[in-house]
Amino acid sequence: MGAFWKHGYDGTGIAELERATGLGRQSLYGAFGDKRALFERVLEHYFERVLKPSVIDILDAPGSGRGNLERLFDLWEQAALLPEFNGCLVGNSVSELGLRDEELARALGRKFELLEAALTRALVRARRAGEVSPALPIRATARSLLATAQGLAVVARLRKDRAFVRGIIDQSRRLLDA
Amino acid sequence: MGAFWKHGYDGTGIAELERATGLGRQSLYGAFGDKRALFERVLEHYFERVLKPSVIDILDAPGSGRGNLERLFDLWEQAALLPEFNGCLVGNSVSELGLRDEELARALGRKFELLEAALTRALVRARRAGEVSPALPIRATARSLLATAQGLAVVARLRKDRAFVRGIIDQSRRLLDA
Repeated sequence: MGAFWKHGYDGTGIAELERATGLGRQSLYGAFGDKRALFERVLEHYFERVLKPSVIDILDAPGSGRGNLERLFDLWEQAALLPEFNGCLVGNSVSELGLRDEELARALGRKFELLEAALTRALVRARRAGEVSPALPIRATARSLLATAQGLAVVARLRKDRAFVRGIIDQSRRLLDA
Repeated sequence: MGAFWKHGYDGTGIAELERATGLGRQSLYGAFGDKRALFERVLEHYFERVLKPSVIDILDAPGSGRGNLERLFDLWEQAALLPEFNGCLVGNSVSELGLRDEELARALGRKFELLEAALTRALVRARRAGEVSPALPIRATARSLLATAQGLAVVARLRKDRAFVRGIIDQSRRLLDA
């Protein structure tokens, strides 16, 4: 997973995959078919092991929807400032592959939809509890938070600057109160 | 330029570059040195021919700073909904290359800084003219707009849906009034 995350799809050669998995080329091809098939598996793995625990489960945790969103914002800040931060594998893959492979594009789009749905659920709960502005447009705000997170994952990749990262995240907070 | 924009750096082979430029491999290498050097030229070209006219010049146009920001928002919407929208070459390259090549990373980071500076100038003018909330945190808002634009360029790549795109941009508008 790390190889694709760090080097991108085209940037990850079979030698890289051998190194990362400790498997030889024959075993790799035997187990996964080809690089594309392996990448599909990696994408699912990334979703289950990274995005689900660090975004979706946090948003869906019991308690305050706004509190969960705040926990997510804190995690964004921490992640973006890690020296080895490689952005989001889903966003990176969309940027790199676009619509080149329709089936992969659908799988990637589906991940965005699941993130948007989790953001929406947390916002709905926050609005019901009076933790965000009552006039908050839930659906558009969820989409805007998704876009901000993806954009932050891009612009913070080159800029390990807490004020920069926090400024962006604070505007998402401001949006919830406006 | 189109080849790198559409297929990414690693995804653009010499055959693609021959096709795109109409030059043979020998002429290409003679004129530019190697793929990396050509990519650097393409990046400057993209900045001068795409980002400068469609972002910076619009923000710096005489008249209302808020009006210029609104023109930019309209352009984001139009661009994101184009069937052949390939995102932003700067953002795509950051997502794909990360910090793999320090010199390229610096060149890419510098483009983000120039965009942020232009957003800041327009916001300063808008605030002076009372066209945005007087309490608007200018620097953080400029950074947030940069992140939103980059995020929109990622998430809209897979989703040609006007309500989706407009919802995200409307939250940037809402931020200016909050």
